[in-house]
Amino acid sequence: MNTFGTFLRLTTFGESHGPAVGGVLDGLPAGLHVDFNLVDKELSKRSPGSSPLASARREADDVEWLSGISPEGVTLGTPIAFITRNRDCRPSDYAATSAAFRPNHADFTYEKKYGVRDHRGGGRASARETFARVAAAAVARQWLAAKGVMVQAVLSGVGTTVCHNIFDSLIHHPESSRRLHVDSSLSEEMMRQIEEARKEGDSVGGEVACLVTGVPAGVGDPVYAKLHARLAEAMMGINAAKAFEYGLGAAAARARGGDTADIFDSSLHTLTNFSGGIQGGIANGMPIFFKVYFKPTPTIMRPLPSVDRNGNPATIPAAGRHDPCVALRAVPVVEAMAALVMADMMLSPLSP
Amino acid sequence: MNTFGTFLRLTTFGESHGPAVGGVLDGLPAGLHVDFNLVDKELSKRSPGSSPLASARREADDVEWLSGISPEGVTLGTPIAFITRNRDCRPSDYAATSAAFRPNHADFTYEKKYGVRDHRGGGRASARETFARVAAAAVARQWLAAKGVMVQAVLSGVGTTVCHNIFDSLIHHPESSRRLHVDSSLSEEMMRQIEEARKEGDSVGGEVACLVTGVPAGVGDPVYAKLHARLAEAMMGINAAKAFEYGLGAAAARARGGDTADIFDSSLHTLTNFSGGIQGGIANGMPIFFKVYFKPTPTIMRPLPSVDRNGNPATIPAAGRHDPCVALRAVPVVEAMAALVMADMMLSPLSP
Amino acid sequence: MNTFGTFLRLTTFGESHGPAVGGVLDGLPAGLHVDFNLVDKELSKRSPGSSPLASARREADDVEWLSGISPEGVTLGTPIAFITRNRDCRPSDYAATSAAFRPNHADFTYEKKYGVRDHRGGGRASARETFARVAAAAVARQWLAAKGVMVQAVLSGVGTTVCHNIFDSLIHHPESSRRLHVDSSLSEEMMRQIEEARKEGDSVGGEVACLVTGVPAGVGDPVYAKLHARLAEAMMGINAAKAFEYGLGAAAARARGGDTADIFDSSLHTLTNFSGGIQGGIANGMPIFFKVYFKPTPTIMRPLPSVDRNGNPATIPAAGRHDPCVALRAVPVVEAMAALVMADMMLSPLSP
Amino acid sequence: MNTFGTFLRLTTFGESHGPAVGGVLDGLPAGLHVDFNLVDKELSKRSPGSSPLASARREADDVEWLSGISPEGVTLGTPIAFITRNRDCRPSDYAATSAAFRPNHADFTYEKKYGVRDHRGGGRASARETFARVAAAAVARQWLAAKGVMVQAVLSGVGTTVCHNIFDSLIHHPESSRRLHVDSSLSEEMMRQIEEARKEGDSVGGEVACLVTGVPAGVGDPVYAKLHARLAEAMMGINAAKAFEYGLGAAAARARGGDTADIFDSSLHTLTNFSGGIQGGIANGMPIFFKVYFKPTPTIMRPLPSVDRNGNPATIPAAGRHDPCVALRAVPVVEAMAALVMADMMLSPLSP
Repeated sequence: MNTFGTFLRLTTFGESHGPAVGGVLDGLPAGLHVDFNLVDKELSKRSPGSSPLASARREADDVEWLSGISPEGVTLGTPIAFITRNRDCRPSDYAATSAAFRPNHADFTYEKKYGVRDHRGGGRASARETFARVAAAAVARQWLAAKGVMVQAVLSGVGTTVCHNIFDSLIHHPESSRRLHVDSSLSEEMMRQIEEARKEGDSVGGEVACLVTGVPAGVGDPVYAKLHARLAEAMMGINAAKAFEYGLGAAAARARGGDTADIFDSSLHTLTNFSGGIQGGIANGMPIFFKVYFKPTPTIMRPLPSVDRNGNPATIPAAGRHDPCVALRAVPVVEAMAALVMADMMLSPLSP
Repeated sequence: MNTFGTFLRLTTFGESHGPAVGGVLDGLPAGLHVDFNLVDKELSKRSPGSSPLASARREADDVEWLSGISPEGVTLGTPIAFITRNRDCRPSDYAATSAAFRPNHADFTYEKKYGVRDHRGGGRASARETFARVAAAAVARQWLAAKGVMVQAVLSGVGTTVCHNIFDSLIHHPESSRRLHVDSSLSEEMMRQIEEARKEGDSVGGEVACLVTGVPAGVGDPVYAKLHARLAEAMMGINAAKAFEYGLGAAAARARGGDTADIFDSSLHTLTNFSGGIQGGIANGMPIFFKVYFKPTPTIMRPLPSVDRNGNPATIPAAGRHDPCVALRAVPVVEAMAALVMADMMLSPLSP
Repeated sequence: MNTFGTFLRLTTFGESHGPAVGGVLDGLPAGLHVDFNLVDKELSKRSPGSSPLASARREADDVEWLSGISPEGVTLGTPIAFITRNRDCRPSDYAATSAAFRPNHADFTYEKKYGVRDHRGGGRASARETFARVAAAAVARQWLAAKGVMVQAVLSGVGTTVCHNIFDSLIHHPESSRRLHVDSSLSEEMMRQIEEARKEGDSVGGEVACLVTGVPAGVGDPVYAKLHARLAEAMMGINAAKAFEYGLGAAAARARGGDTADIFDSSLHTLTNFSGGIQGGIANGMPIFFKVYFKPTPTIMRPLPSVDRNGNPATIPAAGRHDPCVALRAVPVVEAMAALVMADMMLSPLSP
Repeated sequence: MNTFGTFLRLTTFGESHGPAVGGVLDGLPAGLHVDFNLVDKELSKRSPGSSPLASARREADDVEWLSGISPEGVTLGTPIAFITRNRDCRPSDYAATSAAFRPNHADFTYEKKYGVRDHRGGGRASARETFARVAAAAVARQWLAAKGVMVQAVLSGVGTTVCHNIFDSLIHHPESSRRLHVDSSLSEEMMRQIEEARKEGDSVGGEVACLVTGVPAGVGDPVYAKLHARLAEAMMGINAAKAFEYGLGAAAARARGGDTADIFDSSLHTLTNFSGGIQGGIANGMPIFFKVYFKPTPTIMRPLPSVDRNGNPATIPAAGRHDPCVALRAVPVVEAMAALVMADMMLSPLSP
């Protein structure tokens, strides 16, 4: 099941150390002029080489568009296929991993599911797969932007450093809050935590906050495919995600109903936004916001004890290179998946 | 989209105050002997009349099986349809709600999506719809049980009373922890919080913990339909759910990688279970566990200010009856949805 | 897989001699005023008691609507569920069939697929299942009618009596041909052939022609889900269907390209309609027409030799009652399935 | 909707004169050793350059495998992506077609559906798209072969030359008939008809017969997704297909039930095979066979009158190159689609 979405469907493929990774985006309406510079900008955000704190692997991520877009750059309504070649692969780094199962990785479970696995750098389970998500979403976001829908995500916490008030203004002043803001001193402190983990050969967890504005009231689905259920599925489908919450989130479990009612004003907006822009699974026109929590990168630069498929002891050597904080790299992926969900639901035949 | 699942599909229907609610479960293998007493037992758990703290509405929930099961009680491999009639409807209770939008309900968003809505008690957005989930899952759970898979959920927190250590033994002693346990004094304290909210005409949030044991390693899907992504979607599709986490959950965002590695032993089990039984989206054979956080019931017994569709002021009268803690009633629904996800994924053609 | 359709989905259930048969129609837009008299009229057409030449089984086919329609008769946008109870079941008629496999029936294949089967009158494979198709389509057709789309089918051949020119006017005078017409003397001859087969305790095959008008140019899909591919699937999913053709049909295999080009006129209509209203899988605005060929009813009033599951000889006794020409009863089902396909494709998010 | 299949899903992409065409095959089990020579052999069959009677366009059809297969040639259980580059494109040939709508082509309908179209040689509607079907099926057929399932198709008629008895032995001696055979003098006559059409600058229709052996009894689905319904959809999704029939086919409409009953023998096989190997939508273990009828290629080497989008007269110039008989080139595509349907249905979780 490598297809995401119902009306706008992204099918992806590619092992991290195979010939290429890519995707096919099917269902986007014809007639959209694609700005390829914007696509490249999105892709550069996810590139591991874009930050000194991310994996040292260089990925040029030259995207090649194979179909669905006319020579003039206009979508044809047909499937948009694209690939990027895998380069800078050093399989020797991964040789030792072929025998032993890396803790908290998908090595063991892949082997149980498929009986065979491509142990070249994680294969399909590698973060490399997110290239296809970001590339496809970079096109979908242009379609959303034309409808006034904007998606933005930000790193809102690393380890013990958390921007606790990131949703406060969104909840209490929803009309005036159209941008996620993290205090620059907090940002610096988060970077410091990542750097510290890196120096110690360790990794650290983090959280990403996301805001979607401009979604018309009425978009969504009331029962199983609730808008936030689809967002939750999308976010938990990102590697290393461990928790999802929207609106007031887990804090709602501690709250009273009388204190958290979003009262309507005469313009049919709500004065507060405890609901996070979604009521009964359907957008109510207010800003939509949610958070995703990521575990520390399981690959660390210290050797770890493990076993091979026969249960015999085998040590996982210290990693050759890795991202000390996967949440940092997840920011553009959160944006991408949110955009794919929103475009999918807006393309539903019953959407307003 | 009132269908849940890919291989085992549940399609549900019914407005809370229409003639009936029910469902069609398609894809369950033939040959399962259904124990209808077990089904009734599950249904009685969700019945609002089952607790003095739940909504006073009496629902006999007599389930009528319409198809898919032979006179001898054996599944035929054909769709299993079932309904329950709606009784004890007092539409007059809901008369005032037809004009005004209830805060934190789906009234406004339904109207924006459909242009029309069945304002008789919430229509399709009512918790009454969960009857179909629980009834279908009560059959699916018997199929799971025959494969050794058990699902159990428990109320693990209400308001400020939280059973903080409910996952501790599951994480640190995974092999010995096969049952969720909440201290009885905590349980009493939770009930006291609910009773207190009820007396004040208010409502209170809560959380539900769930454990799934016996799932073979290899069940799941590695990319978009990760096992925990499907669980997250299922749980967030339950009314009032605001957050989902599995394994170490949101706390993982504060952790270091070196401290949270699940090291394999020679039997290919892991010594700890920070991963919550799922690695790379695929079950690893350890216990699976997750939590769902619910907001307070939006219906309270105090009048609330609101507006009608023209934005004119309209007061929502105090509720005639309601559940002061929706999390309490969600426990069997969490179990039901977890069972439907597990059965669906185990029926995948690529499952081990 | 008892669900038909992508955007408008019909899920059906029910064994012919179980408690009920019914369906759930999901995806129809809200706000349609349903004329239940029209629904009853469609249902009465398929009722076996509606013709002296059809099975003598009486089916009142009282349809009960369970959800999705407001008390005022307006669709709510939620799933529309409906059932009819099974009455007039005489299981004794079918006792002998439980042991032996009836030739050309699904008895043997059901047993191979499910290991168990409901041998009460064919179970799910019975024509009784078509009740749900016709009932659901009777609602969908009202939505289509509001968009100007009309579906009509007619019995165009029985045994050796065939209305050979039924498509001629549709091909050569497409603009003026908006109604299927079978010469009344041919109709009489067809009825005579059915009566003759009945008297001889035999059955006879037949064909049904169908015309769909008013479909806007642009509806359809260009590759796998071509409009005629979806129609073919729908028609071959009707019991006893053996062949499908559209436009010039199988005769196209004998034709030359230069003789069968549909030349456009200045209004972008075509002067002829060899294409049957579909080009490249997409409607071109001309009348759509196709034919479905049905085998003789496999149940006949003469004993047939067969075997039981162990391969031991067992005679199938002469049928207690049956339809001597299944094509006659298939006419409303062909209309129903054509309507479901058309509504589904018109509800596609990319339809014009 | 460029995805075909439910459990084994092929998603294809590519315009005929864009950078590449290709596909992604998702759902094939891991562990299959792929014989790439067999794949090339299948691909060479569909290559237009493979026959002097086919389009003169040279397509090397070098397939490049991008994912899903290990360096050792073993399927990984992950999506198998592949492309071929488009070469030998002479867009100038197609310049004139950009303005005028070609009769019996998808030009007009694409423009109505998408508002924009890639008029470079038919874009997505070109037969070039079938590359992806044949390449994917060439892998799927190796999986089928390992299960004993064989698929073979043959050109059984061109214009007025038809091999009328191609199904006779399959119907009357099903056990001994495991191969489709067309008399060599008939084959020559068919080639002569194609050559004649070509010389006259015209095109001619034809038919393709297909046989599938080795399918276990019990594979299929009883209601909407009947095995023959899925085959019909698949076949009618091939360009230029106008009719589909299986088993006795359209001739069943002329037959009597007493004459066409497939009587079981003591081994639970049937003595005749009027049913074409499928009863009630489910394989009964006998050979499956069906026919597909194709219209003449709409592109001919004579100018045709047409109009542009404003309805102004515009002549379609004589074609630069074309296939005079599309049925000839459809043979490997019929095989490919039949293989994809069979593999899909055999991978269903409820298949025996």
